[in-house]
Amino acid sequence: MQHGETHLKSSDFISDIVIGMSDGLTVPFALAAGLSSAVQSNGLIITAGIAEIIAGSIAMGLGGYLAGRTAMDHYKSELAREFQETVDFPEKEKEEVRDIFEKMGLSPQTQQQAVEELSQDKDKWVKFMMKYELELEEPDKSKARKSAFNIGLSYIVGGAIPMLSYVFTSNPDTGFKFSFAVTVVCLLVFGFFKSKLTGQQPIIGALKVMAIGVIAAMSAYFLVRLFN
Amino acid sequence: MQHGETHLKSSDFISDIVIGMSDGLTVPFALAAGLSSAVQSNGLIITAGIAEIIAGSIAMGLGGYLAGRTAMDHYKSELAREFQETVDFPEKEKEEVRDIFEKMGLSPQTQQQAVEELSQDKDKWVKFMMKYELELEEPDKSKARKSAFNIGLSYIVGGAIPMLSYVFTSNPDTGFKFSFAVTVVCLLVFGFFKSKLTGQQPIIGALKVMAIGVIAAMSAYFLVRLFN
Repeated sequence: MQHGETHLKSSDFISDIVIGMSDGLTVPFALAAGLSSAVQSNGLIITAGIAEIIAGSIAMGLGGYLAGRTAMDHYKSELAREFQETVDFPEKEKEEVRDIFEKMGLSPQTQQQAVEELSQDKDKWVKFMMKYELELEEPDKSKARKSAFNIGLSYIVGGAIPMLSYVFTSNPDTGFKFSFAVTVVCLLVFGFFKSKLTGQQPIIGALKVMAIGVIAAMSAYFLVRLFN
Repeated sequence: MQHGETHLKSSDFISDIVIGMSDGLTVPFALAAGLSSAVQSNGLIITAGIAEIIAGSIAMGLGGYLAGRTAMDHYKSELAREFQETVDFPEKEKEEVRDIFEKMGLSPQTQQQAVEELSQDKDKWVKFMMKYELELEEPDKSKARKSAFNIGLSYIVGGAIPMLSYVFTSNPDTGFKFSFAVTVVCLLVFGFFKSKLTGQQPIIGALKVMAIGVIAAMSAYFLVRLFN
């Protein structure tokens, strides 16, 4: 069990990093591509890229952190409410438990037996209602905070990858070509690992992550040119 | 039931719109704020804003659509695998069902009875394993597609709000002031409805959505100035 938990933590960490990076690669990459078709200086593209990376990482990181806190508050208030309901309306709550067992496909006799057993232990009863009626699991607050931080930080690293080509080249055309080549490779690599971690087919997943980035970048490139 | 479903569909639609808009407001707003501290022309800010809105809406919309398709494929392959397992290893699968009832807090006798009942109907049995062992519900493909489209489109509308101030003013300083005022009001309004739809405290939720946008914009504004 302890070994299992350690494994899970390390995999959560890697999962956050890979998700943040593959998302971070997409939008700054496409933003830079769009600007490449409209401006003459790499400096402007880099400035816009920095602004986007700051904006995106804060929106993702802070947004994720606050969503985690909200989920915790929601869980606590629902837990208190369910507990009070087993005190105030025990028959109604028993009926709700019975409904759940009925939907599982158990016979009326087994339903009745299961309801009686659960309602003898208030903690078990409330825990059951939280999980199977409300489908709420107790959120892990420190995990949500760490996760938000890791995703936000990885977004910055991922976003830096398509921008670096504009730092080391002298004009947007050349910058875009290098940025495109480097980012496509990185999208494939991160898409591969992201798919492995989320249980998808890695090759198909890698191609999908790459396709989203390339379609976003090409659309931005041609539509910005059209608007100008 | 029919009334209930109609209600749910309309609320899903509104929920997608509000989520897309409040997210769309945040990053383009902060990007424009960051650029306001560095460039002298509104034209550049608008160009960058258009590129960001295209990139963000495609990443969100197409990303959401492909994630929905992946979830569907994943569900189908797991369903086929679980079905095969009830054929190949019925005793092992029965043991897994028993474990789930044990964790719910039922007595060994009731566990045994429930396992026997479920394993007599293969469809019920597999459906039970999908929901309670793998915690997978059958995804709604057309809903995922519509939802991705609506979120992507609302992201464009939300993103246009902070950018319009730069269209109707003559320099980045004035543009930023108007953009800030308009976007803060919109973030509060959309945050309020977003919180109502996701079951949070609307006032606190509105303030959180607004705070994320303002912190992202102010960070972009001051950090871009620092980098330049």
